[in-house]
Amino acid sequence: MKILVLNCGSSSVKYKLFEMEKNELLGRGQADRIGTPGSLFRHYLKEEHEFLEEKPLKNHHDAVHALLAFLTDHKRGILKNSKEIAGIGHRVVHGGEHFKACVIINPPVRKVLEEIKNLAPLHNPPNLMGIDVCDELLPGVPQVAVFDTAFHHTMPAHAYIYAIPYRYYLENHVRRYGFHGISHQYAAWRAAQILREKIDELKIITCHLGAGSSLCAVAGGKSMDTSMGFTPLSGIVMATRCGDIDPAIVSFIADKEQCSLPDVMEILNRESGVLGISGISPDFRDVEEKARQGNKNARLALSVFAYSAARGISSLIPAIGGIDVLVFTGGIGEHSAPMRRRICEFLSWLGIVLDDDKNTDKEMEGIISRSETSVKVVVVPTDEEIMIARETWALLKKN
Amino acid sequence: MKILVLNCGSSSVKYKLFEMEKNELLGRGQADRIGTPGSLFRHYLKEEHEFLEEKPLKNHHDAVHALLAFLTDHKRGILKNSKEIAGIGHRVVHGGEHFKACVIINPPVRKVLEEIKNLAPLHNPPNLMGIDVCDELLPGVPQVAVFDTAFHHTMPAHAYIYAIPYRYYLENHVRRYGFHGISHQYAAWRAAQILREKIDELKIITCHLGAGSSLCAVAGGKSMDTSMGFTPLSGIVMATRCGDIDPAIVSFIADKEQCSLPDVMEILNRESGVLGISGISPDFRDVEEKARQGNKNARLALSVFAYSAARGISSLIPAIGGIDVLVFTGGIGEHSAPMRRRICEFLSWLGIVLDDDKNTDKEMEGIISRSETSVKVVVVPTDEEIMIARETWALLKKN
Repeated sequence: MKILVLNCGSSSVKYKLFEMEKNELLGRGQADRIGTPGSLFRHYLKEEHEFLEEKPLKNHHDAVHALLAFLTDHKRGILKNSKEIAGIGHRVVHGGEHFKACVIINPPVRKVLEEIKNLAPLHNPPNLMGIDVCDELLPGVPQVAVFDTAFHHTMPAHAYIYAIPYRYYLENHVRRYGFHGISHQYAAWRAAQILREKIDELKIITCHLGAGSSLCAVAGGKSMDTSMGFTPLSGIVMATRCGDIDPAIVSFIADKEQCSLPDVMEILNRESGVLGISGISPDFRDVEEKARQGNKNARLALSVFAYSAARGISSLIPAIGGIDVLVFTGGIGEHSAPMRRRICEFLSWLGIVLDDDKNTDKEMEGIISRSETSVKVVVVPTDEEIMIARETWALLKKN
Repeated sequence: MKILVLNCGSSSVKYKLFEMEKNELLGRGQADRIGTPGSLFRHYLKEEHEFLEEKPLKNHHDAVHALLAFLTDHKRGILKNSKEIAGIGHRVVHGGEHFKACVIINPPVRKVLEEIKNLAPLHNPPNLMGIDVCDELLPGVPQVAVFDTAFHHTMPAHAYIYAIPYRYYLENHVRRYGFHGISHQYAAWRAAQILREKIDELKIITCHLGAGSSLCAVAGGKSMDTSMGFTPLSGIVMATRCGDIDPAIVSFIADKEQCSLPDVMEILNRESGVLGISGISPDFRDVEEKARQGNKNARLALSVFAYSAARGISSLIPAIGGIDVLVFTGGIGEHSAPMRRRICEFLSWLGIVLDDDKNTDKEMEGIISRSETSVKVVVVPTDEEIMIARETWALLKKN
């Protein structure tokens, strides 16, 4: 059974096509700069052949149309026709309180998705665009929504209730949701597999560190708490986001800048985090480079990030009553050996000691802690798409 | 040498009078409801005699005047005249970035205190009123300001810098300050004394749990990090305050209620925390009572508080690379055995096991963990006034 996975952002569409029975990735691709000049589509077939298509992509309809045209192209493509696609799995960032697991999209579901759209105003609307475009271009092909929040629905109430008037939870569903659930779930599963242990018997903390970063405490294979809360602005320090903060600072900035609350949110979402402290870049590679050259604010920004992650990791241990495994995933988690080292230095009290050779090895998947350590540290390249494909496949088989 | 310690709140004045050489508390008292009908002054001399004075106290001037009149009263008092007071120590909540230790108040210092007044708009102005009144009523008696922020000035930058644009730190001094420093310092010192250990050799986390609550990580006798930040609204969940939170919630509430930012701050300061979740009371005794009767929101509120404290305690361990001692102080920390038990249950992964008999013993000071535990748990009734008196005495002797 062939499953197409779509991850639609505001100006990008990523896809992967899997042959599920063979656990095979047939092709993947990414359209960028949708709606702006110079949109570009890259396709990779069986990880061997790369194809670039420079073509104007006005909107998500154009992008999905282009990717289907490519996949069914009789010379370059890999599908005889688009009917070979047995199901489509969509990444949907926010499932609100309603969706506790992935779901087949039908008109009533589509209606609820519309209603909760504004819980993630930057993310959910493009996710829904992708769903509607597929409905149009691939009528009759079952579509499944896989939510970034769903994995966290096993959190106990004391972890998801905010200490604000309770009516905001009852009436407005203000609570900790948590995000990156697909990535956390995959990373925990894969780490257990690498360690040849049963996930049910492990206490795992997964660190998804990228442009957005979050942590998750996993016990018995379930999320018991996570660092992100109501929105993806919260939790630990990020590339451009401040994370959880003294709420009086929101008020202070509005007052100081004489600006509106949406303006303050822009500052905290886009001008804060490692970029805000360093004044250099949201790209950690640039900040690392400046830090090596002796730039003090670059060093401070990296220390604040590492310390914030270490504080966050430690703060999640009570959720699962201990820690057996620490997993790094996401762009920074997978690729930044210096950042992993900094974070783990703050965690040496847990008995964590990295194996420097393994930590700096370019081969990205595996155990990077010394063999004698009680807490294993594992690097896992995230694969949200295979997770989405598996969830989609399982749900379609069940129905 | 007799030292008078004053702690002036918005509608209260507390005092203690010490004979320093003998380490003796000569008298203490408290004026409440200053400026409202029914103001009341209670005095306790040598912990034996209680005197109540119901008298109108229009302002802090009246209150300090009344306390001096009482202390020098030839029948009831204990001073021949007010000139016996060799120095006055004032609790000042916020010392900003300027004051890293206690300081003798002279005109230039008074000027700086005026300038930083608005860093703690609820607390610093009444503190300054107390200083000015003493200047008038006890001219020539040296006065010392002891700051609740000073103890935390040993934090490293990665602990006090927020991940927001750096200009807010440089230009507006937005940073983690931390509060309850006098209490944390006293609690750490006293716990080491109880344990007959050298404070320099201990890794201590102190929990000041009261109406306002904060945690502090102490190593080598110094604060290395603390839960409260820029203002006392932040950190862990409190009786009526929300603590650190997703900043997007500030924006959400303003939008939902169509209210101003100061209104949102009021909600987060006065209607949140344990009161907000339970809908019952900011007084933990009331909430505990309802919880015993089966009230679900009361139980949830207490769980959220305990879990927030346990998360906060765990998050501070990286600051000092381990934990030898956990100290409870403040109204709830000293008096609520059920809350200490809840918090410690979330910390069992650290090897903490309470001795139930000791935990529920009414005698309030001492070790409450089982003898075999690696992390000692100690209850210390806080005594901010003796700490202020000692700091004042030491500074006056030096000058």
